[in-house]
Amino acid sequence: MDKKFFNVISVPAFLKLFQTFTPICEMQTAGLSSITLPAILANDLYSSENLPHFSRAAMDGYAVFAQDTFGASENNPVYLKVVHRLGVDSIPDFDLKPGQCAQVVTGSALPRGANGVVMIEYTKLITGGEIELIKCIAPGDNIMSQGDDVKKGELVLAKGTKINYRTLGLLAALGIQKVRVLRQLKVGLIITGNELVPFSSKPDIGQIRDVNSLTITHFLQNERCKVRNYGLVRDDKDALATVVQQSISECDLVLISGGSSVGQKDYTLHVLSGFQKSKILAHGVALRPGKPTILAAIGKTPVIGLPGQVSSTLVVLQVLVAPLISFLSGDLNWKKPLKPYLPAQLTANIPSKPGREEVIGVKLLIQDSGLYATPIFAKSGLLKKIAQADGVIYIPAHLEGLTKDEQVQVFPLN
Amino acid sequence: MDKKFFNVISVPAFLKLFQTFTPICEMQTAGLSSITLPAILANDLYSSENLPHFSRAAMDGYAVFAQDTFGASENNPVYLKVVHRLGVDSIPDFDLKPGQCAQVVTGSALPRGANGVVMIEYTKLITGGEIELIKCIAPGDNIMSQGDDVKKGELVLAKGTKINYRTLGLLAALGIQKVRVLRQLKVGLIITGNELVPFSSKPDIGQIRDVNSLTITHFLQNERCKVRNYGLVRDDKDALATVVQQSISECDLVLISGGSSVGQKDYTLHVLSGFQKSKILAHGVALRPGKPTILAAIGKTPVIGLPGQVSSTLVVLQVLVAPLISFLSGDLNWKKPLKPYLPAQLTANIPSKPGREEVIGVKLLIQDSGLYATPIFAKSGLLKKIAQADGVIYIPAHLEGLTKDEQVQVFPLN
Repeated sequence: MDKKFFNVISVPAFLKLFQTFTPICEMQTAGLSSITLPAILANDLYSSENLPHFSRAAMDGYAVFAQDTFGASENNPVYLKVVHRLGVDSIPDFDLKPGQCAQVVTGSALPRGANGVVMIEYTKLITGGEIELIKCIAPGDNIMSQGDDVKKGELVLAKGTKINYRTLGLLAALGIQKVRVLRQLKVGLIITGNELVPFSSKPDIGQIRDVNSLTITHFLQNERCKVRNYGLVRDDKDALATVVQQSISECDLVLISGGSSVGQKDYTLHVLSGFQKSKILAHGVALRPGKPTILAAIGKTPVIGLPGQVSSTLVVLQVLVAPLISFLSGDLNWKKPLKPYLPAQLTANIPSKPGREEVIGVKLLIQDSGLYATPIFAKSGLLKKIAQADGVIYIPAHLEGLTKDEQVQVFPLN
Repeated sequence: MDKKFFNVISVPAFLKLFQTFTPICEMQTAGLSSITLPAILANDLYSSENLPHFSRAAMDGYAVFAQDTFGASENNPVYLKVVHRLGVDSIPDFDLKPGQCAQVVTGSALPRGANGVVMIEYTKLITGGEIELIKCIAPGDNIMSQGDDVKKGELVLAKGTKINYRTLGLLAALGIQKVRVLRQLKVGLIITGNELVPFSSKPDIGQIRDVNSLTITHFLQNERCKVRNYGLVRDDKDALATVVQQSISECDLVLISGGSSVGQKDYTLHVLSGFQKSKILAHGVALRPGKPTILAAIGKTPVIGLPGQVSSTLVVLQVLVAPLISFLSGDLNWKKPLKPYLPAQLTANIPSKPGREEVIGVKLLIQDSGLYATPIFAKSGLLKKIAQADGVIYIPAHLEGLTKDEQVQVFPLN
C-alpha cells in the first residue's frame, strides 16, 4: 500500500473538522401523531402553559395545611377533620380551613389552601370522620405544584434537540400539537470498482457482487437520511469526477466506497483533489479498523472516502459517518453518537500472525460477572462472520494474538 | 398502596414466563432493496453458491505455488518469474507453472495452480521480469479460497435471525434477492383513567392530557410493531372489559396503561382476572422502577399492565415489553435486547428522604476515565426531566440519598 498520502489524525481531531461545514437549516412542520422519529427541532420551543396546570397530590393520603401537622409524632398525634374525599378527577371547588383535611389519591387536584399531603401510611381514620396523624410535613411535601414540571413562558426544548418518544410526551403534555423540525439529510452514495456487478447479477470469474450499496443504504436510512444512489462507477477518473460533481450539487453529504482494491483509495483521493475549491481535510484516521478514511470538502459539501474492507467500513460508518450525519442534520448533541469500546473478557485464545493487523468478530455475552467476548474465527472480511458478530476487536501488527481471559476492547457493531 | 396482590418475581423469572406464549408464524416475502429493517427471517436459509465463487488474493503481492517459497529468507532468497500482472477484475485464464508467479492486487482472481500470495513487502522486482522473495509462505496464506466465506449448500442464516443491514450484505453477496420474513407484530394499546383527556384537548382542573398514547405508540413503532390504539377508557369495569375483549381478538399483544391513580392497578388486575381462560402470570417484578407490572394471559394472548408512573413505564417498556415483543415476533435472540445497567460515577450528591424510594434522571458523560452521571434534580415523574435524561438511577427507601463520587448503576433510557 502506498502510504505517502497518509497523515493520520485522531478520531476527536477528525470529528472536530466537521465544524468547518454548515448544518442544514431548511425546516418543515410535523404533527405529533405522524412525526417520524427521531427528528431535530428547528426552533427554540417555549411553553404557553404551566405543567401541571393545577397543584396535585403526588401520593395517596390527606391534603392538609402543613402548619397543622407541625409537632405531630407517634407520641403526640394531631387530629384533623376529613371534609372531602377526592378522586383523581374530582374538582375540589372549596377552601380547606385550618383543622380540616381532604382525602386524596395520587394525581388529585388539591383544594385551595392545601399546601402538602400526608402519606396514608402515617394516618389512621378514627370514628367521627377524623384522622389521627403521626408525622409532621413541610409545606410542599408530597405535592406537585402548578408549574413544577414546566413554567409558563419557560424554554422547553432548545433548537437542535433530538425529538424522541420521551420528548414527544413532554410536548403532548404541554398541548403542543405540531413542531417545526429540520428536513432529512440527503446523502449521495457512490460505489466504485471495476470488479463489481449489481447484487442482482450473476458474477463471472474476476467479478463480485456489490453489497456495499445495499448495506450502506440501509445504514443511512436507519440514521434517518434520504439516500440517493449513484450506482456503480468504473475505475475511471473522468467517470468518477463526473459523478462526484453531480452528487455534490444534489446532496448534503457524499460517501464514496471503493472496491476491494487497495490502490483504489489513492485514486479516489486524486479525483477529489482535482476539483476547484476542493480541500482534503483528512487522509487517515487513528481508528482500527478504519484507518484509510478520507474527509474532503468540495465547495461546501463534505465528501467521505470509505475504506474498502467491509469491517473497516462498518466501524467508520458508526464512529465517523454517524456523527457527521448528526452534525449536518442540526443535532445539538451530535457528539453523543460516539460509541465507546466495551471492555470484555476473552473466552478463547486468538492466534494471529505478527506483522499483520487483524480484525476479529466476536459474540458478546452479558453475565452478572461482566461482559464476555467469544471470538468468531475468521479471515478478515468474511461477510458471514461479520453478519454474525456483535462486535469486533483489533489486533495490532506487533502482537502474536491474544490470550484467553485477557481483557479486550470490543467495538460493538449495530 | 394495597400490596396484597403483589407476588414479586425476578426479571429473569418474568422473562421466562414469555415462553408460555406462542410466537407469530405468518410470513411474507420481502425484496432486499425494499425490506423494512430489522426483519425476522421466517425460514432457514441455505446458500446455492460458494462465496467467494472463485479463489482470490487477500493481499497485494504475488500469487505463487507456496511450495516454491519453502526455505526462502533474507539470506536465502528465492527467484520467481513474473508471467502476468492481474488487476482486480482480470480473468486469469492460464495455469501457473512451478517457478512462475503472477502479480495480484487484493481481490484478484488467482490463476489455476496458485495456492498462496506473498505480500508485496517481502518481494523485490529485479531485472529480467523476476522477483526476489525473502519470505516463505504456507499453502492458503493470504488468499481467500472458493467457499471460504460460505460453502454451497451451507446454512447461511437460521429461521428467527434478525436481519439488519449487515446480514443484508451477506444475502446480497450470495445472490439472494428476496427473503421470507415474519409479519409485524400487532400490539393493542389501552389507556385508562378518568382524569385523562386527549392530548389535543385543553384540560380542566382535575384533568390532565394523556401523553402515554403518543409515547408508547412511538416506542412500539420503533420496535417495529403495528400499533392499534383503543383510545381512552374510563375507570369502569365493564367498559375496560369490553375493550380488552375486543383488543385480544384483534392483537398479538395488549398493553394497558393506567392513569396516575395508584388504586388503578388492582382495578386492571380485577378486570383481567375476570375473563374466562385468564391467568395472572405475574403481578409485581423485582425491577426498580417498574415493580407494579402485571403479566396475564387471556386465552393465548399476553396482556401487560404497565405501572402508572412515567419513569416506571419507560423502564418496563425497555426491560420487559421490548423482549416480549422480540419473543412474540419470532426473534431467535429475543433475550438479547436485555439492557445492562451501566456503572457510572456520580458527579454530585443526591439528597433523598429515607422511607421513600426515588427515581432520579441523570445525564451521562463518557470520558476517557469512565462514565459519569450527573443527576437532574427532580420530583418523581416530571416529564421535562425525563425528556432530558440519558438514564435513571433508583434510590431504595432505606437510603438517605447518594454521595458524590459514589459508583451507581444507571439504567440507560433509549
